[in-house]
Amino acid sequence: MARTGRRPGPTSTRSTILEAARRRFAAAGYSATSLRGIAADACVDAGVVLHFFGSKEGLFRAAVGWPFDPARAEQTLLSSSAEPLGTRLAQTFFEYWEDPTTGPALAALLRSAMTNVEAAALLREFVAHELFGRVAAQFAPDQTQLRVQLAAAQLVGIAVLRNLLQLEPISSAPIENLVAWVGPNLERYRRSTEPDG
Amino acid sequence: MARTGRRPGPTSTRSTILEAARRRFAAAGYSATSLRGIAADACVDAGVVLHFFGSKEGLFRAAVGWPFDPARAEQTLLSSSAEPLGTRLAQTFFEYWEDPTTGPALAALLRSAMTNVEAAALLREFVAHELFGRVAAQFAPDQTQLRVQLAAAQLVGIAVLRNLLQLEPISSAPIENLVAWVGPNLERYRRSTEPDG
Repeated sequence: MARTGRRPGPTSTRSTILEAARRRFAAAGYSATSLRGIAADACVDAGVVLHFFGSKEGLFRAAVGWPFDPARAEQTLLSSSAEPLGTRLAQTFFEYWEDPTTGPALAALLRSAMTNVEAAALLREFVAHELFGRVAAQFAPDQTQLRVQLAAAQLVGIAVLRNLLQLEPISSAPIENLVAWVGPNLERYRRSTEPDG
Repeated sequence: MARTGRRPGPTSTRSTILEAARRRFAAAGYSATSLRGIAADACVDAGVVLHFFGSKEGLFRAAVGWPFDPARAEQTLLSSSAEPLGTRLAQTFFEYWEDPTTGPALAALLRSAMTNVEAAALLREFVAHELFGRVAAQFAPDQTQLRVQLAAAQLVGIAVLRNLLQLEPISSAPIENLVAWVGPNLERYRRSTEPDG
């Protein structure tokens, strides 16, 4: 809603689309939300949405405020080195949190999801669709989603203690040290037989 | 600061003391903060502080908003059953988060610590002093603090995904199932040799 009578500029159009996208994605989830519906809410043509965001996935990422391309991260993660996946997952996670651009963006995202219901719904939808979906095939087939989420919980918990609450010594621990501790536990979630079995 | 000329009642005195306590504990930490100093800030006698909160520890707990007595939790935890400590830690943690009184209080605490610098300093001081200190003796002697914090990070991360972000399936998983998965990983942090050794 422009406050003057002038035609809204690109910045305002972009943010109107983002607002509409946040509302729709949070309310209906990723799959049930259409570019066309968002475009209609924002009173623009679907082509305008594509012009700004490239694709529905790109729009989703921008709406959530996610600071890197999950498809690229997946490529790096699955193509690299002979280390066990648990180790590579931990390494990649800590590197994104350490990075001066992506780190603060991830912290802001987590903060707002923990204090705002719509932001939580958006982030929930995003991680399920854009992150967990990409690694699930690498986890054992029984209770796969729970395994992925337990591994994610370990990593997110470290980000909370290390980057948000800044507890010592975990806050100053070198990444290699954290990876060495955490990697084997992530591997256990990924591959062990059922805990009671 | 009373807005009328009347003498402040007990509720107002109590909250004035709590405000002073939060400021002092957050700025100087638990050990360096004295009841006398807090009482002086609140313009009351130290005896009044003891009357309301029983002890410096009780005042600290009230200032943080911590919803149960850590000393009692420790007693239950260390006295009970033949299960490995990792299992009992997980069980106790999830029970406090499930409880309709303590659960929401813990969620509120974590939320405010993640979005407010003073609340973060207070919570940091509290967990280091009142929680981690109580279990540290049960962890292997090398890198003890880091071990404790990695275990805590696993549990906190689950609370974030399960109770705050409400991701499925972890949000509806029965406690027994979570404990069975998580217990062995906590035991690994507690007892394994150094990860690189």
